[in-house]
Amino acid sequence: MSERKFRYVGTRPIRHDGIDKVTGRATFGADFKLPGMLWGRVLRSPHAHARILSIDTSKAAALPGVKAVVVGADLPEMPPGGETDMHDLTRNILAREKVLYDGHAIAAVAATTRSIADAALELIDVRYELLDPVLDLDRAIAPDAPILHSELRCEGSDPKPQGPTNVAQRVEIVRGDAAATFAQCDVVVEREFTTPTVHQGYIEPFACVARSTEDDQTLVWCCTQGPFMIRAMCARLLGLEVSKIKVIPSEIGGGFGGKTTLYLEPLAIWLSRKSGRPVKMVMSRPEVFRATGPASATRTRVKIGATRDGKIQAATATLEYEAGAFKGSPVVAGAMSMFTMYDIPHAKIEGYDILTNKPKVAAYRAPGAPMSTFASESAIDEIAAKLGMDPIDFRLKNAVREGSTALYGQRFKSIGLIECLESLKKHPHYAAPLAQGQGRGIACGFWFNGNQQSSASVHLNEDGTATVISGCPDIGGSRASLALMAAEELGIPSERIRPIVADTETVGYNDGTGGSRVTFATGTAVIEASRDIVKQLRTRAAALWSCDVEKVGWEDGRALPLEAGEGRVPMTVAQLARRMARTGGPIVGRATWMARGNGPSFAAHLADVEVDRETGCVKVVRYTTSQDAGKAIHPSYVEGQLQGGAVQGIGWALNEAYHYDAKGTLQNPGFLDYRMPVASDLPMIDTIVVEVPNPHHPYGVRGVGETSIVPPLAAVANAMHAATGIRFTDLPMSPPVVLEALEKRGARG
Amino acid sequence: MSERKFRYVGTRPIRHDGIDKVTGRATFGADFKLPGMLWGRVLRSPHAHARILSIDTSKAAALPGVKAVVVGADLPEMPPGGETDMHDLTRNILAREKVLYDGHAIAAVAATTRSIADAALELIDVRYELLDPVLDLDRAIAPDAPILHSELRCEGSDPKPQGPTNVAQRVEIVRGDAAATFAQCDVVVEREFTTPTVHQGYIEPFACVARSTEDDQTLVWCCTQGPFMIRAMCARLLGLEVSKIKVIPSEIGGGFGGKTTLYLEPLAIWLSRKSGRPVKMVMSRPEVFRATGPASATRTRVKIGATRDGKIQAATATLEYEAGAFKGSPVVAGAMSMFTMYDIPHAKIEGYDILTNKPKVAAYRAPGAPMSTFASESAIDEIAAKLGMDPIDFRLKNAVREGSTALYGQRFKSIGLIECLESLKKHPHYAAPLAQGQGRGIACGFWFNGNQQSSASVHLNEDGTATVISGCPDIGGSRASLALMAAEELGIPSERIRPIVADTETVGYNDGTGGSRVTFATGTAVIEASRDIVKQLRTRAAALWSCDVEKVGWEDGRALPLEAGEGRVPMTVAQLARRMARTGGPIVGRATWMARGNGPSFAAHLADVEVDRETGCVKVVRYTTSQDAGKAIHPSYVEGQLQGGAVQGIGWALNEAYHYDAKGTLQNPGFLDYRMPVASDLPMIDTIVVEVPNPHHPYGVRGVGETSIVPPLAAVANAMHAATGIRFTDLPMSPPVVLEALEKRGARG
Repeated sequence: MSERKFRYVGTRPIRHDGIDKVTGRATFGADFKLPGMLWGRVLRSPHAHARILSIDTSKAAALPGVKAVVVGADLPEMPPGGETDMHDLTRNILAREKVLYDGHAIAAVAATTRSIADAALELIDVRYELLDPVLDLDRAIAPDAPILHSELRCEGSDPKPQGPTNVAQRVEIVRGDAAATFAQCDVVVEREFTTPTVHQGYIEPFACVARSTEDDQTLVWCCTQGPFMIRAMCARLLGLEVSKIKVIPSEIGGGFGGKTTLYLEPLAIWLSRKSGRPVKMVMSRPEVFRATGPASATRTRVKIGATRDGKIQAATATLEYEAGAFKGSPVVAGAMSMFTMYDIPHAKIEGYDILTNKPKVAAYRAPGAPMSTFASESAIDEIAAKLGMDPIDFRLKNAVREGSTALYGQRFKSIGLIECLESLKKHPHYAAPLAQGQGRGIACGFWFNGNQQSSASVHLNEDGTATVISGCPDIGGSRASLALMAAEELGIPSERIRPIVADTETVGYNDGTGGSRVTFATGTAVIEASRDIVKQLRTRAAALWSCDVEKVGWEDGRALPLEAGEGRVPMTVAQLARRMARTGGPIVGRATWMARGNGPSFAAHLADVEVDRETGCVKVVRYTTSQDAGKAIHPSYVEGQLQGGAVQGIGWALNEAYHYDAKGTLQNPGFLDYRMPVASDLPMIDTIVVEVPNPHHPYGVRGVGETSIVPPLAAVANAMHAATGIRFTDLPMSPPVVLEALEKRGARG
Repeated sequence: MSERKFRYVGTRPIRHDGIDKVTGRATFGADFKLPGMLWGRVLRSPHAHARILSIDTSKAAALPGVKAVVVGADLPEMPPGGETDMHDLTRNILAREKVLYDGHAIAAVAATTRSIADAALELIDVRYELLDPVLDLDRAIAPDAPILHSELRCEGSDPKPQGPTNVAQRVEIVRGDAAATFAQCDVVVEREFTTPTVHQGYIEPFACVARSTEDDQTLVWCCTQGPFMIRAMCARLLGLEVSKIKVIPSEIGGGFGGKTTLYLEPLAIWLSRKSGRPVKMVMSRPEVFRATGPASATRTRVKIGATRDGKIQAATATLEYEAGAFKGSPVVAGAMSMFTMYDIPHAKIEGYDILTNKPKVAAYRAPGAPMSTFASESAIDEIAAKLGMDPIDFRLKNAVREGSTALYGQRFKSIGLIECLESLKKHPHYAAPLAQGQGRGIACGFWFNGNQQSSASVHLNEDGTATVISGCPDIGGSRASLALMAAEELGIPSERIRPIVADTETVGYNDGTGGSRVTFATGTAVIEASRDIVKQLRTRAAALWSCDVEKVGWEDGRALPLEAGEGRVPMTVAQLARRMARTGGPIVGRATWMARGNGPSFAAHLADVEVDRETGCVKVVRYTTSQDAGKAIHPSYVEGQLQGGAVQGIGWALNEAYHYDAKGTLQNPGFLDYRMPVASDLPMIDTIVVEVPNPHHPYGVRGVGETSIVPPLAAVANAMHAATGIRFTDLPMSPPVVLEALEKRGARG
């Protein structure tokens, strides 16, 4: 496979949606309008934890211009359980018995203008019984903790606890006997790490327009990573048939996992059903911060032991992840991913999913992994230092390779961690001198990469151009990469291919854009659909040449006669396309699959930091990422993924955090106070794209979107240790935190 | 096939698009808007025939608010020839050297408002050299006729004439020796018939919105019968790749063949390219009448001879059809269809395609057939009367049946003409007494029915509902009929199926809605795509049952185990759909084909008329149609087609006609003066749906949309003869014409 010569794959054509995006013409969630459209707005809880005694919407409903009001009790009740707990989901969308976080939706209003809708919200009278909020892990697990859900029992514990709890789940991964092994280790490091609640910080707030007709035919325009998820969830939440709902995904201004769930769409549909009018809903930035799923705040206790020869012998960890108001933190993925870079003979990991009075967490790029890896890669750094080993050499010595078996059970085929580490070691960055006060850190990361279902169609046009239809919203340049794969198979330039993200009606089922799955899974579907086209083109050529299809070859976009004969000259795609009608009609290729084999992805990051000792401000002065892409279809977008993940990880490391007051009110629901890195904060992020082909993809692709956010937290913290001698264990390493640490050390030192 | 028991086919569910249409929510051509949209308007020629000396658009371009102006010379020049003559087409869209009819487009302007665009048109200075107009057939073929196109030479004549001419084509169909056979006939009738220029009279004027971006990505929203035709023609006319153009067909407010070509779309695209803004264009009703293709005015001389035993022995005809300003009348179809109801041993038909200074004709429901059939079925009526035979018996004696060969060469498989005639004969209408002054007429009709290319996809949803994707605009209820066919194959109610008319990007290539082809051709594709789904469902069931797929049966929407085994219980579509992800991923069915075998369609119509002898006003008092549908998928929409065709034919017979003055200016470009029948003019049109299955369709479907307009012209004329004793040979039989004829007969009689 690595021998294959590519003609189009690996080139960097301008993306098909590029001009629309740079001119501002591309239409995002809030850009859609329908005639007679109403504005929907949401009343949100000012309390973090309270029982709802009553909701009186009569005054709001009577306000001129108000066309519909909906409260939780209006929506169908849902049974608990299942892969997605609908009982929880319907309550997260509109609170019923209790409000569970600051910003929790209580009622929705549709009115002729946005200001009337806002005025109506003011007229809704909610009576609460205030309850103590649970705002951190210690409080959540305390014996006298206020209980969020009285019916909740902890899953995965043995014996199953009887009483109410805020601990929704316990998971455990065990190999060998770690506890016994530590005694045989020459070096053991044990530390506790915490990370705060952070938000994906996508630029585009949630937005949608919904229209439901008298016969329940329902149109939803929205920005989402998963239009088929929106369709399925709305159908279930509202008791509609799937075929009644059409979801048109808009362009998406960032998602990062945060747009794999839904908040507004069922409300907009319900308001439309009640009012008989289309309803538009757009969140404000404070609503996004207060009420859409951020990433878990976490606490991870990690212990790693190694022998003098530099081999890790044992590792244990205890992970506590905040789920927010409803169960379902990514603690399982956090537990499964944290030690996966290394062959460790003895290990035990425990994880806990813990409820707090914060918004229900959502996926955020490699969900769960950056936090636990922050702990494990910080500890690895410390061990390497204690052993006096170069941190890359130490990692290389323990790195997983083909044939290694991860703690969670997967036996790896070809993987690229060693290649990533070696590429960093050889990179000029690693040998570059550091200025006074600077420090350099390294960390690795791993992500599973998702599979799930994909469908794709390819339509050959009569002039030999083609259309590629997929159903996964294009977040990271997937139109370009899908077109390149079709180009490679069809042998025509990607400029002659139009890649389309279709709505849920006009393409087969597709799981969402997430799990770094699209280029791998949908890409494979596109390749298969293109091969389906080529197969049909060979059949058409065979008919024209009056020969058997086995006597028609295919190369570089041309059918080739394998046996000489009258009129048998090579024919291009365009020549065959022009003869479609005469040779049997239109040519449509299609493929569907339940993807398998999205290759595990590894990365290694190198960070140089400089600390301002007067202000505590940390500046990343140089940063290099190396990651295995399997095969980079469009290298620019692979590099973009590597850079973007690094930047988000740097933000997580240095500045980002939710700040709640004692009552549980979010204090910084805006980009002024929730400090994300901007371009001027950062150096150019250098990228090394390693290509160790994934044997499960025709070209060797493995997903690249998520692994890139896993190493930076530890890479920056390790660099901070190098720069300051201080082991930072609690994120963010924001100026006040750093300043305090420096002062403490100064006082001590 | 006729034995097959249908569960859903043949039922009459509410159409899926019904509520949208009765509530006014459905979006038609003029209902689309884009931000920043301009209005495009067209300057049209006030002259029927003139040379363009110069066009000065500078004042128009300078008018504030005007963003772009386009004239013919701006568009790429096109080579002559080919199936669609692009050299002609580009000149019909915007005149170049000459204007050729009243209303011919000369220039187009895009401005910020419609009124500014209209004002700009007034500022365009066109200098003309006026030429004599050619307004009828006699003038067109006169030796000294003004010549519309100096380079035109008559095709199909032998020897080929050397000089310029207005006769674009001669066609001939010959069997045996008709001239010699007339001498052996006992009765010979010879007459000349004329029909005027008429318009399809669709309710919705042409309308479109186009947007072209900096990289030529082009969106066209428009009302059309052929979105892929619009795409192909715009690509060729403007030099774009097909993959750059996306055509979204709106709902369509009638087409009847008139919307199988294009007028505005290339102008809107070009104006958008020049202005950088979206451009909307909507024709006014006068523009529709003046400048969109009506049906040919015709003159047909027919001669039929029969022997005393009631057998037709010979027939000849000469057809002259007006093409309008550019070649291409439907004279070939007129010639091929006129005698096809009968087995005639000796025949000769000549046809001429003749240019006049009127708008280029377009297709109109069974294009060409109603006019020539008016002649032949009038003559048949006269012969039957002369032989003293019942007109149905006479027709039955000569009617084609399975095994007959049409003059144009097709050997018929099973056809339903005899069944249609017999059903009329048995119908109470045929025996019902007539009041004083009333008359009854009968006539038959034939239409070939088209084939062309169709693609369809069916997507199975995870809850067992399904989506049917086709690419033919729904004019006559095709969503409902396609859904019913999918329902029949999948074994689920059509209410659980969502039928979609997709845009040109999201479905495989489809020729347009026309030729009565959609239920047949696209229907077959939908059936095949549904069977593709069933095949996959059987494979999934086989996997679940650990058995060979051959051991999985299918019946009534359920997979059935053909051999007993553990867990092998019948599974419904919904049960299998819920397991899609686990059993291999999404299920998409697709089919494409170059259709063959749309069954020939025959009809027989019975009309009772009553003549007001004071006003000459003719009232149709009873009307019964009988037509072979092969198999009626949704009987209500079959009946609707039969009724609609009859009504349009009645209008053609009694009232409709273009009136030009001597200069060639259309005098009645509006519905007040162009008199179409409305509901209050008509009785209920009774329908008899005959079902003689078409062996080339899985259910026996044959197209029904067009044949229904073929018989009424003669049926009404024959009824008029019965009522008045006058043989009307020139349409329309409008009150002044009828009054004059009555008066003449009164004077004579």
